[in-house]
Amino acid sequence: MQKLASAFIFLFLIGLTKVFGQEVPKELENIISPQVNPDQTVTFRFFAPKADSVQISSDFLPPIKVMSRFGLVDGPGKIALTKDKNGLWTYTSKALASELYSYSFLVDGIKTNDPNSPYALRNGASLTNIFIIGNGIADLYKTTDVAHGTLVHSWYPSSGLKTNRRISIYTPAGYEQSTDKYPVLYLLHGAGGDEESWAAHGRAIQILDNLIAQGKAKPMIVVMPNGNVAQDAGYGYGRDGFYKPEFLLPRSMNGEYEANFMDIVTYVEKNFRVKANKANRAIAGLSMGGFHTMHISRYFPNTFDYVGLFSAALMEREDATGKVYSQIDQTLKTQKDNGLKLYWIAIGKDDFLYKANVDFRKKLDDLGMKYEYVETEEGHIWKNWRIYLSQFAPRLFR
Amino acid sequence: MQKLASAFIFLFLIGLTKVFGQEVPKELENIISPQVNPDQTVTFRFFAPKADSVQISSDFLPPIKVMSRFGLVDGPGKIALTKDKNGLWTYTSKALASELYSYSFLVDGIKTNDPNSPYALRNGASLTNIFIIGNGIADLYKTTDVAHGTLVHSWYPSSGLKTNRRISIYTPAGYEQSTDKYPVLYLLHGAGGDEESWAAHGRAIQILDNLIAQGKAKPMIVVMPNGNVAQDAGYGYGRDGFYKPEFLLPRSMNGEYEANFMDIVTYVEKNFRVKANKANRAIAGLSMGGFHTMHISRYFPNTFDYVGLFSAALMEREDATGKVYSQIDQTLKTQKDNGLKLYWIAIGKDDFLYKANVDFRKKLDDLGMKYEYVETEEGHIWKNWRIYLSQFAPRLFR
Repeated sequence: MQKLASAFIFLFLIGLTKVFGQEVPKELENIISPQVNPDQTVTFRFFAPKADSVQISSDFLPPIKVMSRFGLVDGPGKIALTKDKNGLWTYTSKALASELYSYSFLVDGIKTNDPNSPYALRNGASLTNIFIIGNGIADLYKTTDVAHGTLVHSWYPSSGLKTNRRISIYTPAGYEQSTDKYPVLYLLHGAGGDEESWAAHGRAIQILDNLIAQGKAKPMIVVMPNGNVAQDAGYGYGRDGFYKPEFLLPRSMNGEYEANFMDIVTYVEKNFRVKANKANRAIAGLSMGGFHTMHISRYFPNTFDYVGLFSAALMEREDATGKVYSQIDQTLKTQKDNGLKLYWIAIGKDDFLYKANVDFRKKLDDLGMKYEYVETEEGHIWKNWRIYLSQFAPRLFR
Repeated sequence: MQKLASAFIFLFLIGLTKVFGQEVPKELENIISPQVNPDQTVTFRFFAPKADSVQISSDFLPPIKVMSRFGLVDGPGKIALTKDKNGLWTYTSKALASELYSYSFLVDGIKTNDPNSPYALRNGASLTNIFIIGNGIADLYKTTDVAHGTLVHSWYPSSGLKTNRRISIYTPAGYEQSTDKYPVLYLLHGAGGDEESWAAHGRAIQILDNLIAQGKAKPMIVVMPNGNVAQDAGYGYGRDGFYKPEFLLPRSMNGEYEANFMDIVTYVEKNFRVKANKANRAIAGLSMGGFHTMHISRYFPNTFDYVGLFSAALMEREDATGKVYSQIDQTLKTQKDNGLKLYWIAIGKDDFLYKANVDFRKKLDDLGMKYEYVETEEGHIWKNWRIYLSQFAPRLFR
């Protein structure tokens, strides 16, 4: 065993050398970063003996204004780490409220991931580290010791789009062992996202596992499709290989996705044990996915009993002349007349889409269509969308 | 639509600002890196106007010796990028052979991910970017326009380990639509890995999809369990949350995993449509997973007709006194006497486990146990394990 252990330690050191790209003093081999402390402060550490400055950029810090071509906008706050004699930079935050936070280091101004943590999410074309502070809302975002559902990545045939397309589907704990049929929530991502987003940024798997285990949500199947019809699959999973992500892919808001949405419903209802009726179908989406949700649910106006618009991109599009976008008021009225159990709208006070949502609610009021409205703090951020899912899911299939 | 487009561009710029952590000149907003050129050269770009040096560190470059406490070892090669007047650093490689390569940047000596590519794999505690060069072996590692299988992440109950444990299971294209039963390959990861590794580093999903579509491998289910019994799930997926990965977790090579392996087989055979007999079961693993494979297949000596040892950690362990590790020669002889169709051993010439594999083959020779032996170039690297899977899978269930 000595021999084996030595051989593995040997390999491990090669790993370390690769990680740091330079020789690491022995006492710095086991740098822990981030370290969530018992008092909910967090200590960050970064080894950079030659750097003149190391900062952390994160959404737990007060936002700072950043100049863009549209003027001053909010960006994540920054604060400097302090260097010790070995070249180890350290910063400890104040006690943080429960949340999933993201952060990067800026080493002499250049954004760098934390080399001591592989936990990161795609943010545009790049990766950004994350950590979770519990003892509050974010306990829902943790994998806890409850019965777990299953996450399936499969491919559905879209006859309308003439290709197979990748899709993520959550089945709740007990699905495999049961013969029951389940209700289905279709959960749509926003621009820049794909069929991985709700499970990744959205923590939808953990939220559903936890809400169901606590008896707060009914066991349900959650279907997370890809809303970018230019892709057969999310970034890195499809036939186009590894390419630089774009914020808004062509054809994502031209009606093709909405018009062909029944390809997804048909696939799910054929391949999973579902209750295939309106009372057991819900649809919700964030931002662009909220736009998709609004249009899909009224274009197929007798299909979903539950509709959720999370910070939805609800503005009229002058170039949207396709069949899907015609007769909006008329189909909304048909949807209302057909009846539905919950039309749920949530948005943050600071969202750039706030005004569009005010206008849309006015339209619904004029049509006499009932809805529930939830207004939260802050703006167009995943923090809000996780909270909206946590509030919306318990309302379904009651 | 103007309004909507503006709003989205607005958000996108916030994203860019966050990615770079500083203002980006307009002409540099759309940096493409890496760019795989038609002649199989690759251009890397990194924006760092204030940096004094930017290097790329990658396995496509000639390896360089790096000092460690065990002396000089091979590390990935490095080469300098060239800076232009805007602060954009560039390097173009020579034409590269088909392979999946990994790389990082070193900015003034500090390892940095590519901010223009989110495609990265966990390497120890850190993330390292990847890219693929096709027109050769690595075409098998690409998602191509063939019928795709499904990847399932579920949790199996281990009565032996007294917990639910996460497991990845691939079902081939057509599984959902068929009523057929399928053969099963159990595919085990190495130290530092988990139930995500074969799908991530190993490109097992793409390899199987492609080999099956080409008629080179039979449609099969591939089961990728977690071999670290200290974990309920891989790094970031389990109840222990986000913590720094260790190379070799406690209890990973103490016999608990091997002794309780039938919990996995039972779960798979209960929940999937499989041919539940020896002729339709294969097991293979890399490094520590090869060690597990050797021990599991002889401890349950009438269970698997196909056994694959990929760079297997086949040394005797003086501290391994548990029941699993007793009577090794005797159980190997029983396994031989029970009969099996293929015992396949592969290793690279430069592998630090080469000698251990020579010794093990000597043992098999002494026992009169037949095996096939494949010796390749290079050492203990994922490149070899992807190649071994590509060679082993076509041999199964014939």
